[in-house]
Amino acid sequence: MSNYLNYSYKELKTFCDDAFEKFGFSKEESEIITDVLLLADLFGIESHGTQRLVRYHKDIAKGLIQVKAKPEVVFETPVSAVIDAHDGMGQVVGHFAMKKAIEKAKQTGIAIVTVRNSTHYGIAGYYTKMACDEGLIGISTTNTTAIMVPTFGRKAMLGSNPIAISFPAEPYPFLFDASTTVVTRGKLEVYNKLDKPLHDGWAIDSTGNESTDAERVLTCIINKEGGGILPLGGSTEDSGSHKGYGWGMVAELFSSIISMGTTSDKTNVGGKGGICHGFMVMDPKIFGDAEGVKNHLSAYLDELRNSPKAEGKDRIYTHGEKEVFAMEERMKNGINVNVNTVAEMRDLAQYLGMDVVKYLGEKAMSIKGKESLYK
Amino acid sequence: MSNYLNYSYKELKTFCDDAFEKFGFSKEESEIITDVLLLADLFGIESHGTQRLVRYHKDIAKGLIQVKAKPEVVFETPVSAVIDAHDGMGQVVGHFAMKKAIEKAKQTGIAIVTVRNSTHYGIAGYYTKMACDEGLIGISTTNTTAIMVPTFGRKAMLGSNPIAISFPAEPYPFLFDASTTVVTRGKLEVYNKLDKPLHDGWAIDSTGNESTDAERVLTCIINKEGGGILPLGGSTEDSGSHKGYGWGMVAELFSSIISMGTTSDKTNVGGKGGICHGFMVMDPKIFGDAEGVKNHLSAYLDELRNSPKAEGKDRIYTHGEKEVFAMEERMKNGINVNVNTVAEMRDLAQYLGMDVVKYLGEKAMSIKGKESLYK
Repeated sequence: MSNYLNYSYKELKTFCDDAFEKFGFSKEESEIITDVLLLADLFGIESHGTQRLVRYHKDIAKGLIQVKAKPEVVFETPVSAVIDAHDGMGQVVGHFAMKKAIEKAKQTGIAIVTVRNSTHYGIAGYYTKMACDEGLIGISTTNTTAIMVPTFGRKAMLGSNPIAISFPAEPYPFLFDASTTVVTRGKLEVYNKLDKPLHDGWAIDSTGNESTDAERVLTCIINKEGGGILPLGGSTEDSGSHKGYGWGMVAELFSSIISMGTTSDKTNVGGKGGICHGFMVMDPKIFGDAEGVKNHLSAYLDELRNSPKAEGKDRIYTHGEKEVFAMEERMKNGINVNVNTVAEMRDLAQYLGMDVVKYLGEKAMSIKGKESLYK
Repeated sequence: MSNYLNYSYKELKTFCDDAFEKFGFSKEESEIITDVLLLADLFGIESHGTQRLVRYHKDIAKGLIQVKAKPEVVFETPVSAVIDAHDGMGQVVGHFAMKKAIEKAKQTGIAIVTVRNSTHYGIAGYYTKMACDEGLIGISTTNTTAIMVPTFGRKAMLGSNPIAISFPAEPYPFLFDASTTVVTRGKLEVYNKLDKPLHDGWAIDSTGNESTDAERVLTCIINKEGGGILPLGGSTEDSGSHKGYGWGMVAELFSSIISMGTTSDKTNVGGKGGICHGFMVMDPKIFGDAEGVKNHLSAYLDELRNSPKAEGKDRIYTHGEKEVFAMEERMKNGINVNVNTVAEMRDLAQYLGMDVVKYLGEKAMSIKGKESLYK
């Protein structure tokens, strides 16, 4: 773990809370943003945790994220709302929208809220967990910068478009949160750094042919020459490419389409983000016996975990299980933060006039960070 | 096409309508069942069309499907209903449940209906199309006999668990209907008949190791020794196996879990089917400008179809497009029915005391069918 420095959850929370306040967010907004970011780190989804601070920093500096924007409800019914985020911080508007969906679902049993003109909102699973923590079923999706190529195409037209679904269960809930691409761009970047060939069925270059050359694919993407990441299911109908592409479309339907917002292929163009989200909440009471439904799912999840394992495998996971255990472990033993991320946090602290040693310790002063790829 | 006989839509409709009436269904029920079956044939989804008549025949004969059962609403709110199908014909209860969801959504804007103790309901996309034909967004899912092995498992614990979503658009709607397994059992049976090796990432044998031997995999499944079909995304987390497994779980959540019904691993055991379905409908009016939303999607679908193609590919499809064109073509030129299916229909006609020549023509008399695998 020499490439990592260990910080307690509390240390990282103090740093992030104060940094976002320095950017101009209110105390409450800052705590929401931090909560979303650090849940990713606690869940072991490093790509969406403090690692991403540098990108939020740059996006705020560029004006892509408007710190003072307030989400505006532009249309509303008892079961629905459409929100214009006015380029506000994705986490702030996401939290606002999911809270609204939860309030409505508590009244009507089921509600759907959609958001346009937002920015990156972190992990989709954060919002569905908000519903689940109140005993409700939560669904969330977002579109993203285009990276997914439709089946038989060679230009990215959809985002990585994650969809998350949480459903109450014991001893821990079902928490499914997955991009609809086969992998995310972060995975390509890791393989590129390690000089490892990509797996078959992951990516195509600008010709539309599959490529295992991470550097070539990333160059195509960065230079907007075409190419991108394949849908879940790879490049052929035999492996189910059209199914992953279909799920990517479902994410667009419930984010950019119903909100009359920007589809992934047109996001982050001309200094505008335009990211869209969707949120749905159901109260299990509308199916009669909410406690019975929860017990029924809990029993099935237990059967799945205890079902016979494949040769050489000792465990079958249910969705969200790894995250629950990672969270417990990290709350106890702290979170290992990549030294490059720590260097980015040090730069951010200096930019914001924060006392680096006080927040990140002496250990943060001696490390040498790598220049961030994100401009 | 020497293995196929051509029948007009009207000829097949007359045959099916009358056959189901002979089984004891009402005229209205018979027409619904026929409508679901023949939409599959029109869409080019041969596995779910007349090809399946023999299975419905056997299931009715065995008492697995109860002809006289009436769906019972066991719990209801303005936005939801839970229905007990009492082992009735899946198409009849599916149509009843989707109609109820549509009626409710027209009142409240959004509704969800779930069904337990049902039987095979045909293509999920039939029900979502019902909503779409009325300008509404439709979602449907069903569980099935267990065939999907969870990631790292070796026993089928989930069904092929299709999920369908329809969304109004011009010149044709978005109609996504896909199993959450990488392929369905029918595909394995076809490869077995052709003595072709299965693709990597499709199936495992009873040890939990991947196998390309169709006969071996099918034998494992039939003898209930373990093994089965992999989730969309194959066998490893690198190819997204856990994502397909997650989508399979989502199908269970909204069919067997919320209905307090039978999960896939326990269906079709001891003479009981126990299949469960889910239906959701939203009125796009709840997002403000329904016509605007439709136009927004139509424009995006058009952009997708016109986006640059991969080398060697001349077309990018949007979901439902192939089906719409297949339907047009088959309404005009008739439906080619496999001779083995015609032989099964001939046997069925004889069993029900129908005049074979009148319904299927002289051409149906001379063919020699293969014994059905389905008992």
